[in-house]
Amino acid sequence: MAPLRLPVSMGYLRQYLTLTNNGNGCLHRAVASYTRMHTKSLVMYQPSSVQSRKFCLQSRSLQKEELELTSVRYNVQRGDFARISSEDVAVFEKLLPGRVIADPEELVGYNTDWLRMCRGNSKLLLRPKTTEEVSEIVKYCNSRNLAVMPQGGNTGLVGGSVPVFDEIIISTSLMNKIVSVDEISGTLVCQAGCVLEALNTHLSDIGLMMPLDLGAKGSCQIGGNISTNAGGLRLMRYGSLHGSVLGLEVVQADGTILDCLSTLRKDNTGYDLKQLFIGSEGTLGIITAVSILCPRKPQSINLAILGVSNFENCLKALKEAKGMLGEILSAFEFMDSPCIDLVRSNLKLSNPISDKPFYVLIETAGSNGTHDEEKLNLFLEKVLGEGIVEDGTVATDSTKIQSIWSIRERLAEALLHDGYVYKYDISLPLANFYDLVVDMRERVDDSATRVVAYGHLGDGNLHLNITSPAYDHDLLDKIEPFIYEWTSRYKGSISAEHGLGFKKKDFIHFSKTQNAVELMQQIKDLMDPKGILNPYKMLPEKYGD
Amino acid sequence: MAPLRLPVSMGYLRQYLTLTNNGNGCLHRAVASYTRMHTKSLVMYQPSSVQSRKFCLQSRSLQKEELELTSVRYNVQRGDFARISSEDVAVFEKLLPGRVIADPEELVGYNTDWLRMCRGNSKLLLRPKTTEEVSEIVKYCNSRNLAVMPQGGNTGLVGGSVPVFDEIIISTSLMNKIVSVDEISGTLVCQAGCVLEALNTHLSDIGLMMPLDLGAKGSCQIGGNISTNAGGLRLMRYGSLHGSVLGLEVVQADGTILDCLSTLRKDNTGYDLKQLFIGSEGTLGIITAVSILCPRKPQSINLAILGVSNFENCLKALKEAKGMLGEILSAFEFMDSPCIDLVRSNLKLSNPISDKPFYVLIETAGSNGTHDEEKLNLFLEKVLGEGIVEDGTVATDSTKIQSIWSIRERLAEALLHDGYVYKYDISLPLANFYDLVVDMRERVDDSATRVVAYGHLGDGNLHLNITSPAYDHDLLDKIEPFIYEWTSRYKGSISAEHGLGFKKKDFIHFSKTQNAVELMQQIKDLMDPKGILNPYKMLPEKYGD
Repeated sequence: MAPLRLPVSMGYLRQYLTLTNNGNGCLHRAVASYTRMHTKSLVMYQPSSVQSRKFCLQSRSLQKEELELTSVRYNVQRGDFARISSEDVAVFEKLLPGRVIADPEELVGYNTDWLRMCRGNSKLLLRPKTTEEVSEIVKYCNSRNLAVMPQGGNTGLVGGSVPVFDEIIISTSLMNKIVSVDEISGTLVCQAGCVLEALNTHLSDIGLMMPLDLGAKGSCQIGGNISTNAGGLRLMRYGSLHGSVLGLEVVQADGTILDCLSTLRKDNTGYDLKQLFIGSEGTLGIITAVSILCPRKPQSINLAILGVSNFENCLKALKEAKGMLGEILSAFEFMDSPCIDLVRSNLKLSNPISDKPFYVLIETAGSNGTHDEEKLNLFLEKVLGEGIVEDGTVATDSTKIQSIWSIRERLAEALLHDGYVYKYDISLPLANFYDLVVDMRERVDDSATRVVAYGHLGDGNLHLNITSPAYDHDLLDKIEPFIYEWTSRYKGSISAEHGLGFKKKDFIHFSKTQNAVELMQQIKDLMDPKGILNPYKMLPEKYGD
Repeated sequence: MAPLRLPVSMGYLRQYLTLTNNGNGCLHRAVASYTRMHTKSLVMYQPSSVQSRKFCLQSRSLQKEELELTSVRYNVQRGDFARISSEDVAVFEKLLPGRVIADPEELVGYNTDWLRMCRGNSKLLLRPKTTEEVSEIVKYCNSRNLAVMPQGGNTGLVGGSVPVFDEIIISTSLMNKIVSVDEISGTLVCQAGCVLEALNTHLSDIGLMMPLDLGAKGSCQIGGNISTNAGGLRLMRYGSLHGSVLGLEVVQADGTILDCLSTLRKDNTGYDLKQLFIGSEGTLGIITAVSILCPRKPQSINLAILGVSNFENCLKALKEAKGMLGEILSAFEFMDSPCIDLVRSNLKLSNPISDKPFYVLIETAGSNGTHDEEKLNLFLEKVLGEGIVEDGTVATDSTKIQSIWSIRERLAEALLHDGYVYKYDISLPLANFYDLVVDMRERVDDSATRVVAYGHLGDGNLHLNITSPAYDHDLLDKIEPFIYEWTSRYKGSISAEHGLGFKKKDFIHFSKTQNAVELMQQIKDLMDPKGILNPYKMLPEKYGD
């Protein structure tokens, strides 16, 4: 294993060592483990090269000067909350002996988001193990008017999972017990802090799988997934969490435990309250336990990467795939040509097929490998025969599948190499899907390093990324609000799956009407009258404030 | 065609003639059409036999003495709402010229539920065509403190779709325009009054289908389906409406039009408000338009009916079907032996296989007929070979498929022949699913004509029906609250898919905690402060009232 140089600041690693109860373990192992938690494509690399590559990235970010506080950068006014006193800390120490963290260095990682674009200033991290403990914490905070910030794996991309000021961080990391799995009905019940990948591994042994899959699965937690209504790669096949979550247990703003932890597939007895907490980013309650419907694990998986000459043919391929692959189609991803240039120049990855203006990745997952291959072959014959697709290759073994997936999945990493990334996560009607990219490319012209577009075409979800060597305010002015106005004009969503968090809350009006936003605010006021739950997030500042 | 005798009361037919704009048409045709609207299994019969059978049933019910008013039977107190004045009628006449119905005879059908177990006393039916008209109506009613009752196809089974007192009925029947269908994304946008079957027919031409299927599809409307979170036969495969509804347009209690009519598959911008209206039975707002995700229509459908010797083996068959049929499994229904006795004696239907204690119906729907048959054959070889299943037959052509489905689908009709039916729609964990039936059979013993159990086993949804020659209060006392207590003990749902409506609202506590019910009431109070929207439904009387 290659020797590791220690980074200047140890905040991140110390946080991680604490998180994994790894304090007495080997630093090398911790770094490797931390690295593994944040990259899905690890299997592509030898340990030494992975560690040096990722460590280098991490080390680079750690060596930067201290990140500007979110409250300063965005000129935010602190809410009228109480400040933590030593009496408060004593109360928490009694409630959670040994699980109250106040060391500023240990708090660095919890205060900073994964992208290192937002930083809060929390003085206190609480690590409950049970719902009752969460309830006691929140009840106390509500009575004292102390703001709280629920945190799962802290993998959010919009600043929703870190404090803005000194909110008390309630980490769900120790709430990681699996309660039950019903093999026949496919129902999993677990605590909110279970890591997505760990759940998937657990289910795999009995032939089930989680209905969602994300790049961050090694560290994101199911409670956070549900609080942010995470989408990801499997949504096309298994639907949104609004459909697959069967029940939730939630601690409300006053500490009340709301037990909606049903394991039933059908239950029409009153309003479906759990839906309120799916995607509300911890602003209406803290999810403490989850019941979720898990599909059967497929017996066979195939992946094709296909080269396409124009965007119209990408849509034709999608239509044919939906028809001919039907029930086995599990992902339909899209990349434009600059994506391949990007991974080629920044990550030295190669294109497995000849260069084309567009690429689609089509995954099938089914219960009978022979049938699946036959369907895929019939589909490929048709789209190649009709010239919809011009080149392609199919992977059936897991190494080659992973190798092709890594092109798509390492795009975000490759972008960081350019310097600064302006990230947008847009939903658009398919007819207008790529027009935004064309318009944006024309608009930013040569003031950007590149404009790359990829995403979940099967779900109408475009990830549009623009890069420049460093943060450039003039470039940002060219992009925003143009991109939001454009999206709004075509009735798209300015946040398809990332949520609004802190960074996008003020753009909500581009996707939601004034009436809708007002009703949201009324619901927030009803369910959290003091506004202590994850303040400064999701909803814009109140009118008239 | 056999001659028809006219029933004594013409209320039902007149209502129907009005509803279908069929006023100048042939009465025979209207009766046939009304009949067709209420039976899915029509294709099994020659027109003359259908009409006489259904007409006989209908005629019998129409000839009964007038149904007792719900408010009298259940001793309900009228809410503190205003009473309709002639000035009010004049306002509505101006707003909806020719679409204000005040004739008591015409109102009979709208005041009475489909099961003829609930009857309201509304004096006024309004038939808006646009969202703006609904908004104007509700705004006016809210200002005047007039209660309203939104009504779709009036096919509900819990008294939720008819008035209790003199609520103004707002029928969505004329709001039946399809706005758009996107073939590639599978998105349908339409008005709330579109009939489910009509939507399916429309979609069929372009290779799509609705994600839900119900026995009442010939008359139920999509707005009502969503308001009641209808389940049905396809839920196992295509999931609940909480997942497949993409957007809603809703008129709120004060007349505000809430436009959440997104067609996007992914949109994480704020609270997912539309979820509040799915399954809230018109008590939080009136759904006026709908956007819904429609799957591809399958290329091949197969149906197997299998005989099973014990309930444990039904569960084993379910597990094997989920594994071996996987992605093509589209329904897994269950019936016990008394079901076959019932249709044999009451409808003269025959059992296509040898008599067994239990039966399962397994439907597959896929994109490749050869593959589907192969999968089904492999499955059947296994379950027959291992003795999980003892007998069975498979249907691949539509006539035989329909013939087998009709056994399952005509159970509700067959039950009516016994006299009075005590209907229960329960969700239970699969491990306890059939124990309730055994306990109930023991409990009611020979005081009931029969206890039959069937349902959507794949979804854990049991339809438990008990019959007696006439309504028998002592028998009801044996059944309730025993059945609710039993269900509650196993964390089941006392209403899996029918909703609470009027008849089950007071039993909500058997499936929901006090905290949950209180939050529901708070949301109701927030969104409908005067309580004018579908009063006396879904939530129990307020505490302390």
